[in-house]
Amino acid sequence: MTDSKGRLMQGEQTDEFLSGIDTFFFDCDGVIWLGNEAIAGAVETVNKLRAKGKRIFFVSNNSSKSVASYMKKFQRFGIEAYPDEIYGTAKVTAWYIKNKLNFTGKVYLLGSESMAEEFDALDISHTGTGPDPFHGNLDTCIGSVSLDDDIGAVVQGLDIHVNYMKMIKATSYLAKESCLLIVTNEDDRLPVRGSNIVIPGTGSIGAILRVASRRQDRILIGKPNRNIYDCILSKHSINPESSCMIGDRIDTDIAFGIKCGFKTILVYSGVSTADEVEALRKKSPEMLPDYCLPTLADLMRIP
Amino acid sequence: MTDSKGRLMQGEQTDEFLSGIDTFFFDCDGVIWLGNEAIAGAVETVNKLRAKGKRIFFVSNNSSKSVASYMKKFQRFGIEAYPDEIYGTAKVTAWYIKNKLNFTGKVYLLGSESMAEEFDALDISHTGTGPDPFHGNLDTCIGSVSLDDDIGAVVQGLDIHVNYMKMIKATSYLAKESCLLIVTNEDDRLPVRGSNIVIPGTGSIGAILRVASRRQDRILIGKPNRNIYDCILSKHSINPESSCMIGDRIDTDIAFGIKCGFKTILVYSGVSTADEVEALRKKSPEMLPDYCLPTLADLMRIP
Repeated sequence: MTDSKGRLMQGEQTDEFLSGIDTFFFDCDGVIWLGNEAIAGAVETVNKLRAKGKRIFFVSNNSSKSVASYMKKFQRFGIEAYPDEIYGTAKVTAWYIKNKLNFTGKVYLLGSESMAEEFDALDISHTGTGPDPFHGNLDTCIGSVSLDDDIGAVVQGLDIHVNYMKMIKATSYLAKESCLLIVTNEDDRLPVRGSNIVIPGTGSIGAILRVASRRQDRILIGKPNRNIYDCILSKHSINPESSCMIGDRIDTDIAFGIKCGFKTILVYSGVSTADEVEALRKKSPEMLPDYCLPTLADLMRIP
Repeated sequence: MTDSKGRLMQGEQTDEFLSGIDTFFFDCDGVIWLGNEAIAGAVETVNKLRAKGKRIFFVSNNSSKSVASYMKKFQRFGIEAYPDEIYGTAKVTAWYIKNKLNFTGKVYLLGSESMAEEFDALDISHTGTGPDPFHGNLDTCIGSVSLDDDIGAVVQGLDIHVNYMKMIKATSYLAKESCLLIVTNEDDRLPVRGSNIVIPGTGSIGAILRVASRRQDRILIGKPNRNIYDCILSKHSINPESSCMIGDRIDTDIAFGIKCGFKTILVYSGVSTADEVEALRKKSPEMLPDYCLPTLADLMRIP
């Protein structure tokens, strides 16, 4: 019944639903926490599911966290988690470059320290991270930029040090057609609530590169693409029919879950809203999540 | 005869063409100079046209030059030019805000020192220019950003100091629907020749704002829009039928000339190429320039 899709999960449906799922995939930001604050009841829900014997994976488009920094965050929130369960795009991008592309060249990295850590862990050569100040004016700059001939790929994630110098270098490397463009994700914003500040996401930074490089081709690592799933499958056996993706974004999380053949639950504690779900019902009902929940807590509140 | 459009201007056509034109509109970068180097013969051509009694206007999408800085550049190249002939988007944006929008609020300025000069000249209140460093990490930043309630418009031009902090502020202001988004131009790249460096243009920086703000609406000041022409018309009488736009970009210069009802000449010394003209012949022949020339020098070389 397509009509029941995208509706709030009712109390009586929960038990039956949970009994049919053995593996949960969680998005983190907007589902378990918002920035540095846990979403009420979310931590308890994750821990209860684990206590019920469910297998758990954390699948995040966030490229600014290494597995090590995720581990710290989970510990701080009191969530039991293991490195082998954590798949952020910093780790998955490194895996993809090494194992799917078999790329052995050097990477121009427009990303975070955590991405550099994951690259170093797999011996991927890169240009490093951090500020790259712009000196003088545009004219003096053009003379002063020197490009590294060994660069064969530009990898773009969230880089809080992004500036004009980095844009010039990334675009100049991409002028060579053979240079790959690999982007961790295309989320337009980071989920922030209770603030009038909007934080542009990795996809917003990437928009510069798309326009300036005049290139349509790019390898998208994060959700909605299934690379994160492929990375998990390289180590684990998964039965998609008894798996469920829980996320706060229709365009990334739910699209990813559908692409992988999982059941899907959208929580309203992050980016996507009930209005967007209603719009989807008319426009593209095939993209509706199986269920919606106000927050993750509502999955376990009803016993 | 549409078939003759977009062809190289032949020697015998030049005299007749020139005799029918009394006013020339020149794009600068890619037509008269490339960065800091004059294009061979271009300066002489401008001066010869003036000596023949032609009226001249310089119409540039470049937002990083005030009229005063244009004057210096013209002098350096030995081009006779007067402030009233120079219309860059720094000056035209200020004019538009003051005279067309009658905007009296404060502007968040993502632009150059020259834009600030033009804003100051018309008493437009703004936030200033230059670096706005990003301190600490993303979490500490969200707490530290304070927004100015008086901001009623974000104006975006070329800002070589663009960074993540500026992106956050601009996008946060644009979250208020009433806040106007005004962009000087949407050129994706600056014309650079003889270098393997690619310089992202104002339109590339603007792509961040479009994606992050999730807004489709924006006021585009520069070519192909006719605001520059309207600004000129506020001071001068122009007969479009005896006017000619000469530029190096089909999508901005030629489109602008056509929109204003001018004759158009595309020079191949900047961004657009003969291949693009051929593609246009099939795809959208109505956008073809009347004539093409290898460089501006070829307009006067043939007596």
